[in-house]
Amino acid sequence: MSLIVVGTMAFDAIETPFGKTDRIVGGSAIYVAYAASNFIQPVNQVSIIGYDFLKEELDQLILRGVVMDGVEMVKDKKSFFWSGRYHEDMNTRDTLITDLNVLADFKPQIPEIYQGSEFLMLGNLEIDVLLINDAEARQLSGQYSLVKAAKTILTMGPQFLIVKKGEHGALLFHDDRVFFAPALPLEDVFDPTGAGDTFAGGFIGHLAKTKDVSFENMKTAIIVGSALASFCVEKFGPTRLKEISKEDISKRLGEFRELVNFDIELV
Amino acid sequence: MSLIVVGTMAFDAIETPFGKTDRIVGGSAIYVAYAASNFIQPVNQVSIIGYDFLKEELDQLILRGVVMDGVEMVKDKKSFFWSGRYHEDMNTRDTLITDLNVLADFKPQIPEIYQGSEFLMLGNLEIDVLLINDAEARQLSGQYSLVKAAKTILTMGPQFLIVKKGEHGALLFHDDRVFFAPALPLEDVFDPTGAGDTFAGGFIGHLAKTKDVSFENMKTAIIVGSALASFCVEKFGPTRLKEISKEDISKRLGEFRELVNFDIELV
Repeated sequence: MSLIVVGTMAFDAIETPFGKTDRIVGGSAIYVAYAASNFIQPVNQVSIIGYDFLKEELDQLILRGVVMDGVEMVKDKKSFFWSGRYHEDMNTRDTLITDLNVLADFKPQIPEIYQGSEFLMLGNLEIDVLLINDAEARQLSGQYSLVKAAKTILTMGPQFLIVKKGEHGALLFHDDRVFFAPALPLEDVFDPTGAGDTFAGGFIGHLAKTKDVSFENMKTAIIVGSALASFCVEKFGPTRLKEISKEDISKRLGEFRELVNFDIELV
Repeated sequence: MSLIVVGTMAFDAIETPFGKTDRIVGGSAIYVAYAASNFIQPVNQVSIIGYDFLKEELDQLILRGVVMDGVEMVKDKKSFFWSGRYHEDMNTRDTLITDLNVLADFKPQIPEIYQGSEFLMLGNLEIDVLLINDAEARQLSGQYSLVKAAKTILTMGPQFLIVKKGEHGALLFHDDRVFFAPALPLEDVFDPTGAGDTFAGGFIGHLAKTKDVSFENMKTAIIVGSALASFCVEKFGPTRLKEISKEDISKRLGEFRELVNFDIELV
């Protein structure tokens, strides 16, 4: 029972209407690993970092069962750096700086000891589940209606399509079926950076833990992903993900059940 | 078991990215009446119309149990007329024309035979349930976060607050509780005009039918409202609301249950 995660480990500088950070740890594989390691260990990480990446950040991940054999360390280059500014609505952002640094040379290698992992989270290549946002779904399909966009994209290869809509939740499409998971209404969304990756990490973590890729279990996995993402946005960077316990997660999953559960008598 | 509805009965001219109408019947009390009469009769209508309003439109409503004693007909003036154009996202619109006509003199009178109605749907005055959209909630409270906005507004008088978010569903707030109802993901949203009023009509119709104003039953009422609204947007004006049967509604309520129902084991 294990998982390979391929993605960036980086530094981010983030500006939101509520605050501003200097360089803090970030990158998709960081958020995915923090989220997924709540459910599954080992998380077999594949990434690339520069000489400036922090040993203490690696150590924290290792303590959570994240394996670093697939993370290449380049001695004479800096880590990937991204800087962005969120708009008032927190759903859109402008990229201010993208310094590729080590990422320009990234050729993911899967170490021998990762062999036998049953789940793999990737950004591209041939896939079972495609996880994109609403703007990407519209661009990829050329359709404005997300239902039509999903139908088109499902003919392109993926068996399952998840369309993330930020604070407006996420949709799961498979054949003619559709499931909707809301985002938890929060008093404050402090920093949305990494929320999508955290969602993905919770999603794949639950699947890898349960080894069940049915539509029914994917519904649950999406709720788990939404719950993890709802923590992520509460503080800058992955800070909040480092703090939360299994009990915190369980409590929040209960809030999601309360949020959407209803009784209805059908005639 | 009956309901009073106070609102406009009017003509609308609507332009969306998908089409354009001449003057068609519209107005909040029209949409509310079509939606609510699926659940409760009589619907005691209070409104004002001009000489140009169509007798056949009144007859169709009367056939559905809508009582017209509280609808004043002004012989020398035209009915209220509104014209608007929707943007590409169908969530925002520009008003092109507002001709008040008879509405300038509207002084709602409750006829003697309406006395004893147990539910009343209004646009303002002292209220138990306030139903507004997200922009209105932000404006009224001065808060961007809808959770904070709701807390503020609940101190202003209403026991229950419903915040409509168009295609992004609706939130119900009461004390410290919150419930979320999604909008049904649709292939085509043809015309959003009246969707909010239709939502309100389905909501109040279900409450008036069941005579149960608990939080639990309000959840169900919101799902019923969302189901009715999902029909409304399928054609221009109230056309689709005139066509649908109890079976259509029941089937769609089942789709909502499928859409959000999930199983999860909490530790």
